[in-house]
Amino acid sequence: MECPGESPRRYAVIGTGALGGFYGGRLARAGQEVHFLLRSDYEHVRDHGLRVDSVDGDFRLESVRAYGRAADMPPCDVVLLCLKTTQNHLLGELLPPPAGRRGVVVVLQNGLGIEETVAGIVGPDRVLGGLCFLCANKVAPGHIRHLDYGWITLGRYTPGGGAGGPTPTLRAVAGDFQHAGIDVRLTEDLLRERWKKLIWNIPFNGLSVVLDATTAELMQNDPARRLAEALMGEVAAASAACGKPIDDGFIRHMLDVTAEMAPYRTSMKVDFDERKALEIDAILGAPLRAARRAGVDCPGIEALYRQLAFLDARNRRRR
Amino acid sequence: MECPGESPRRYAVIGTGALGGFYGGRLARAGQEVHFLLRSDYEHVRDHGLRVDSVDGDFRLESVRAYGRAADMPPCDVVLLCLKTTQNHLLGELLPPPAGRRGVVVVLQNGLGIEETVAGIVGPDRVLGGLCFLCANKVAPGHIRHLDYGWITLGRYTPGGGAGGPTPTLRAVAGDFQHAGIDVRLTEDLLRERWKKLIWNIPFNGLSVVLDATTAELMQNDPARRLAEALMGEVAAASAACGKPIDDGFIRHMLDVTAEMAPYRTSMKVDFDERKALEIDAILGAPLRAARRAGVDCPGIEALYRQLAFLDARNRRRR
Repeated sequence: MECPGESPRRYAVIGTGALGGFYGGRLARAGQEVHFLLRSDYEHVRDHGLRVDSVDGDFRLESVRAYGRAADMPPCDVVLLCLKTTQNHLLGELLPPPAGRRGVVVVLQNGLGIEETVAGIVGPDRVLGGLCFLCANKVAPGHIRHLDYGWITLGRYTPGGGAGGPTPTLRAVAGDFQHAGIDVRLTEDLLRERWKKLIWNIPFNGLSVVLDATTAELMQNDPARRLAEALMGEVAAASAACGKPIDDGFIRHMLDVTAEMAPYRTSMKVDFDERKALEIDAILGAPLRAARRAGVDCPGIEALYRQLAFLDARNRRRR
Repeated sequence: MECPGESPRRYAVIGTGALGGFYGGRLARAGQEVHFLLRSDYEHVRDHGLRVDSVDGDFRLESVRAYGRAADMPPCDVVLLCLKTTQNHLLGELLPPPAGRRGVVVVLQNGLGIEETVAGIVGPDRVLGGLCFLCANKVAPGHIRHLDYGWITLGRYTPGGGAGGPTPTLRAVAGDFQHAGIDVRLTEDLLRERWKKLIWNIPFNGLSVVLDATTAELMQNDPARRLAEALMGEVAAASAACGKPIDDGFIRHMLDVTAEMAPYRTSMKVDFDERKALEIDAILGAPLRAARRAGVDCPGIEALYRQLAFLDARNRRRR
């Protein structure tokens, strides 16, 4: 993997919602050159900039490098992929201009298998992945509210999904985030981290939509909590069959953490309530396909996937 | 099994909702002596009688033998058990007075394992079971609307669940129903018929509540229809393990019938919408326990059971 040497690096943010607006905004505030791709908010942000209300301190970026079309973006050193995965059919069009000939793409999306898609577009040695533990919403055009957390786990994509130590580029990107006040942890096993995040995302994103419930409501009801735990067990079985065993203690730890969290409306529930397309394929469909390839049955996840597919289709028809 | 010889027989109806009001009302109109146990509608029916608006012809019973307490009822030849199963914890108190020393109890409720409970109260050779294919609602106190169907499959309870031919009492009860214009089919295998009804009831009652959907909406959406079919497969596997194999053609037939039905709001969905307790235990819990005893895993039904338990608890809290 090549390392763009100079700092400040030039960043692109593909998808300037809560995630892209928050991280891109923090990098820009710290002095990086950041180019933001927007769709519905393009004119507003071009004219008025970005506003981030944050538990870490509010800030505004009065003047923002905003783009309405990827083709207008300059080649960048680092491309932060922050779109909803429901837009990933557009990646072949959106990534090449900002990634140029040498830029790396950091996949900050949820779910499984996206790095493979990106590798197919820019080549496998120009892909990093990150898992964001961020609680933030976009509350108005160009206006993000950051409620809690914000740390990122960054790792290197390897074509077989095996472990891989940090590259100079990975360290440089991590340094830029840390300089912007974002806590970064490096992982040598990106795929295992993705599965670990799915342990939480599959049950709690899924059930929050199907049962119209916060995490607290689910944890306080015995049958719902047992269902979440059974789903977590299926994710762990799939993960192990895919070569990434996760110990039981992790499931118990995630249940404990969730029980102690303030009542939380998951990102999939937020999307559902706003009648947006749900990230069902990245969060449930791709893990189900991986499990099937590894010969593992996940009937609970499959049932949840189908329920969400039904609700998603009806929800968007009603829009 | 003893056969009360004289006709007209004396009937008791335990639970005068849509089911009990319709069948009891038809028997009374045909000249049987019918004693109705009521709770919330007791005074209304005592004073104003029963009204049945029916696709088979409307009728009224001006004067009805109505009771507010089972202890006040006379011993009857035949007791029709028409309560919601969510009230079955009361059976030890409600059945003995009308069943007397010789009366038979006909279980007309949905679900599995209820005949065992009744046999524990009145003895195993005084229990019959019936499966009602009736589309009716109670629309006001003492006022039932019969929309479609109405036929009953009647069979004899046998302690081991094995087949058992009709007894004289069974034939006599069937004759009374037929005389009242109700189509009756006799089965020699009551338990198999109960499992066959569960093939439909588990997926469509369950999913109609969890997904807030009519049967038509479920059938028209590919993932939902496949989920219903997967659940049907689990019911069939459980049934087979319990000694009652059901052929695949039956599942396909039920799917075809459901696809051609007018959009239908299931009885569990009606209960949910009226914030009544759901018949989760009889329709999903008892089959799950039977499957577990037979060594069969039903993960989809178990997940659905837990979702319903969560929704039911919250729904009644909001009442």
